[in-house]
Amino acid sequence: MSHPPPVGTLPATWLHRVRRDIACALEGGILTVTLNRPERMNAFTVTMAEELVDVFGQASEDDAVRAIVVTGAGRAFCAGMDLGGDGSANVFGLDERQQPTMRDLDERPDDPAILRGVRDTGGRVTLAIFDCKKPVIAAINGVAVGVGATMTLAMDIRIASDKARFGFVFGKIGIVPDACASWFLPRVVGLPKALEWTYSAELVEPPEALQHGLVNRVVPTLDVLAEAQRVARQASHGRSPVSVALIRQMMYRNSAAAHPMQAHKVESLGIFYASQSDGREGVAAFLEKREPAFRDQASRMPGYYPWWT
Amino acid sequence: MSHPPPVGTLPATWLHRVRRDIACALEGGILTVTLNRPERMNAFTVTMAEELVDVFGQASEDDAVRAIVVTGAGRAFCAGMDLGGDGSANVFGLDERQQPTMRDLDERPDDPAILRGVRDTGGRVTLAIFDCKKPVIAAINGVAVGVGATMTLAMDIRIASDKARFGFVFGKIGIVPDACASWFLPRVVGLPKALEWTYSAELVEPPEALQHGLVNRVVPTLDVLAEAQRVARQASHGRSPVSVALIRQMMYRNSAAAHPMQAHKVESLGIFYASQSDGREGVAAFLEKREPAFRDQASRMPGYYPWWT
Amino acid sequence: MSHPPPVGTLPATWLHRVRRDIACALEGGILTVTLNRPERMNAFTVTMAEELVDVFGQASEDDAVRAIVVTGAGRAFCAGMDLGGDGSANVFGLDERQQPTMRDLDERPDDPAILRGVRDTGGRVTLAIFDCKKPVIAAINGVAVGVGATMTLAMDIRIASDKARFGFVFGKIGIVPDACASWFLPRVVGLPKALEWTYSAELVEPPEALQHGLVNRVVPTLDVLAEAQRVARQASHGRSPVSVALIRQMMYRNSAAAHPMQAHKVESLGIFYASQSDGREGVAAFLEKREPAFRDQASRMPGYYPWWT
Repeated sequence: MSHPPPVGTLPATWLHRVRRDIACALEGGILTVTLNRPERMNAFTVTMAEELVDVFGQASEDDAVRAIVVTGAGRAFCAGMDLGGDGSANVFGLDERQQPTMRDLDERPDDPAILRGVRDTGGRVTLAIFDCKKPVIAAINGVAVGVGATMTLAMDIRIASDKARFGFVFGKIGIVPDACASWFLPRVVGLPKALEWTYSAELVEPPEALQHGLVNRVVPTLDVLAEAQRVARQASHGRSPVSVALIRQMMYRNSAAAHPMQAHKVESLGIFYASQSDGREGVAAFLEKREPAFRDQASRMPGYYPWWT
Repeated sequence: MSHPPPVGTLPATWLHRVRRDIACALEGGILTVTLNRPERMNAFTVTMAEELVDVFGQASEDDAVRAIVVTGAGRAFCAGMDLGGDGSANVFGLDERQQPTMRDLDERPDDPAILRGVRDTGGRVTLAIFDCKKPVIAAINGVAVGVGATMTLAMDIRIASDKARFGFVFGKIGIVPDACASWFLPRVVGLPKALEWTYSAELVEPPEALQHGLVNRVVPTLDVLAEAQRVARQASHGRSPVSVALIRQMMYRNSAAAHPMQAHKVESLGIFYASQSDGREGVAAFLEKREPAFRDQASRMPGYYPWWT
Repeated sequence: MSHPPPVGTLPATWLHRVRRDIACALEGGILTVTLNRPERMNAFTVTMAEELVDVFGQASEDDAVRAIVVTGAGRAFCAGMDLGGDGSANVFGLDERQQPTMRDLDERPDDPAILRGVRDTGGRVTLAIFDCKKPVIAAINGVAVGVGATMTLAMDIRIASDKARFGFVFGKIGIVPDACASWFLPRVVGLPKALEWTYSAELVEPPEALQHGLVNRVVPTLDVLAEAQRVARQASHGRSPVSVALIRQMMYRNSAAAHPMQAHKVESLGIFYASQSDGREGVAAFLEKREPAFRDQASRMPGYYPWWT
């Protein structure tokens, strides 16, 4: 077993900062992020999006965080975008004075006008999850609709309550899937189910979700969080944080490449440098039948990382 | 419920034009296309291919068509390429005087010599389906072999008769998969089954087809067409045609991209503009607990569409 | 039935050359490659890697080989990288004096210093399998761990013993997946299971492997090899070797393309030229209800092959 820092040692500046729509708790290296608007079924807000982007970015770099669990407060996981504004402004928080084009998204995605006035808030969250170096486990304790469903697609493993329901309901209200779901959903459940579920817009129940790979496991509601935390520990404890970060990024990025040579290059560098650091320790510990004492940290990735820039 | 135009109002010019190898019927916004050579088990001909390309192109632009169902007349869905010529000409209708190269396909795919003399007719059909803005549902009423099987892979949802059989038989006759099956089949059923079925060339029965996602549902033969039409209605009625078209194109195109950022850009523009048109109506209707009255039409897509050119 | 050359006619130079860590046997056109270090559970060595790369390259070009089966001697399939060195050298056989970068892999992958000192040996094997023109069937007779599991991902069909176990254990020893597994594994079992299994690093048992498509079939240990050879014969005998090679390469390469047009171009050339050679014979034989007598050979592929260079 390697050594996640005890809670007391963590750099509290970002973690304990007061947040409005989410709550964070770090225990034993597992950061549990709770969507925290139970009176609104944790409906998604622009504030919630900004807070999630911030937390995933910080957690990615903070060595005290070994893995992340995302759950919802109360009975729902997330009932989707909060549509309960007063009708005077754009319901998705977008700046209707602009006339954005594909070129704007290509050339200046981080220009504040585009970043906050045009870009899909759910997609900003899933891209932050995508970039994260830590395993992300969804503890889906109840209803997950709209962005509440699609945000979980960027999480690595989904543990669902037997009371959970998934709704890809975009078509019913005249919009389109968000949160990069048009990239993630077909990769998670295959093209036929992705099309069927977005066309029908009906709620998907746990058995169907399990059968088609939308969730990895269904458990009683009371066990969802504990099971997700167990999976998070298993994925991160006694592991090299650098190895874990590389595995996560390799799986998503290399599997989308046009040729396995792309994977080969990255894996070659991964094994080459690991074999002279945590991988050497891992092999020695294996041969000596003892727990490894890994020392590399995800805040200091090897020089070839990120390999995609 | 939005308002599909009654049958009487449709622009009959293209729809009611006499066709030889297929039949078309529009009812309640659902265009049913029937492969119509029952005496030949609906075997595929160059004429059938041209007619299908034409119909999918026209249906894509005609707002009277909300969704498309494809089925076969008589007992078969489609027994594959009609191989019953007199042996004097190329059995696939190709121009053997040419010596085409990859460059010809890259640089002049629409040159009539290449278009009609070289390009796979099945692939021309599935590319027309791929480009279509309307949901396409396969009602596979019986045997689907060769191009009869592969053409359905470009359709979004496959409803199969319990008497249907699927045959990826190309290897047995010394040719290769057609109709872009080497792109679609692994995406629909996964690489291992795609390889197994094309290697074995044996008929796949409905339970195996269902288990591996080749079909979405198996029903008695007499119910196939009605079930496909029900699915087509569910995917298109009470929906914004622009939203439906975007969902369809996003799922196929974005899921094949190398990075979720591609999906994020398109989804951002999709939500940005929808939120000021049909999406605004959809949200209002949802909040007011009434049916939405969508007004956008697929013949007039937003300015960023097509985003891939 | 076409005519695989009898064993006596094969060019024996490469096949019967003595090898150290693998054994080869050709019978009835099926080359059976046996990982052959049973006293070490067929643990993977640099020599084994070099021998496998050599054999797959030669078998790809030798018309006497119609299909390939890979199995393990004794009770295991392959227990992973042989970690039993004396600790003085790099356990993966890599040259620690180098400081390779992504650019080195991009620009000089075949420079001997990179090829032998940096590149992952498992990946060199799976890339050789990927490039092979012959169907490759895995006969997984027992434990398959580490590269023993990942090397099978590049094989087309996996037949497993009910005593087989699969271990994607890289995370436990501080390294990363090898053998291009970050490309192959998500394509074979989907992203969610690929992440779950590499995170957990636990052994996957045959029922779970079958359920999620990691293996195509589970049979008693004694039947594994015979079943794999049966599948290999089915995929290659009575077939055009050119058609089989094209099907194999098309499925892997075209399915990873961004658009079905890529598949359409290759399929069009495939059908165009096949229809004037083995495909013409195949159609004629089908119509005349006789076995085809194919004459094309994989050593002489049509001019557009390889289409990707």
